[in-house]
Amino acid sequence: MKPQPIQLQQIGSIKTPYIDKAPYQPYEDKLSRFEVEVFPEFEEGLNGIESFHYLMLFFYLDRADLSGKLMVDVSWANIETGVFSTRSPDRPNPIGFSIVRLLQRERNILHISGIDAFDNTPLLDIKPYILDLDSKKDANNGWVDELEDKEHMSLHLRGIPH
Amino acid sequence: MKPQPIQLQQIGSIKTPYIDKAPYQPYEDKLSRFEVEVFPEFEEGLNGIESFHYLMLFFYLDRADLSGKLMVDVSWANIETGVFSTRSPDRPNPIGFSIVRLLQRERNILHISGIDAFDNTPLLDIKPYILDLDSKKDANNGWVDELEDKEHMSLHLRGIPH
Repeated sequence: MKPQPIQLQQIGSIKTPYIDKAPYQPYEDKLSRFEVEVFPEFEEGLNGIESFHYLMLFFYLDRADLSGKLMVDVSWANIETGVFSTRSPDRPNPIGFSIVRLLQRERNILHISGIDAFDNTPLLDIKPYILDLDSKKDANNGWVDELEDKEHMSLHLRGIPH
Repeated sequence: MKPQPIQLQQIGSIKTPYIDKAPYQPYEDKLSRFEVEVFPEFEEGLNGIESFHYLMLFFYLDRADLSGKLMVDVSWANIETGVFSTRSPDRPNPIGFSIVRLLQRERNILHISGIDAFDNTPLLDIKPYILDLDSKKDANNGWVDELEDKEHMSLHLRGIPH
């Protein structure tokens, strides 16, 4: 039995300064504006969101490569690894995920810290990042911890220009 | 211009002991088995995943209520708040998200710690939980921090039986 396709809907747009090129990870570029525009018909669902410091954004990576390659060349680390052990946008279901700081809410607009998404990326969902559930202190960095020059590699991992 | 629907595909199944009733959050039930079965055609993408302590699972909440209600009654907290400030499954796009510990991998099967999903929930994506990116120590618990009897409420929040 072949599984049925799953349909989702766009509920808003992510506004960023990135037209042709975006960083690998949410980088806090304080000179640029980053906004989430939730379509007005979903604005009521934002009630109470101001109480959170961090949000999780789920978005559709509409420029991802859907060719189906399951191994990824991680050029900055000079390794090849499975797509599910990376945050590459080119994956079987191109769901983007970023944790961002909520700076301010104006009605259906959320002003946020930097995000690694192209301008006008379709928004799928917003969930609160909850300290007691989501901050795992005993997590690790997986294969990145095994690389030589780990501190330099961590800058790449976090998308920090250097 | 009405946005186009977005199509995703099922890439596996989540196996849990929960047939009719599931906890609110991933609860570490050590007596039960929790597995992620990735369809064999995607197994190659799991290369390297064993190096991570925690994984983020993205799944399709196929039993969610899609009636479109944007305010949620949080019965254990006795409040009503917007769906995007909750982790309720009943949301415009029913994308489930849980952070789980990876216990062991056997080919295309991942043995994991407890997860708040029904048996046979369709899997959409797996991403590594990366300490340096995803563990935000300065996060908060939003409106939960403002409730009376906060320690008791935190047990509800984390889905811990008490």
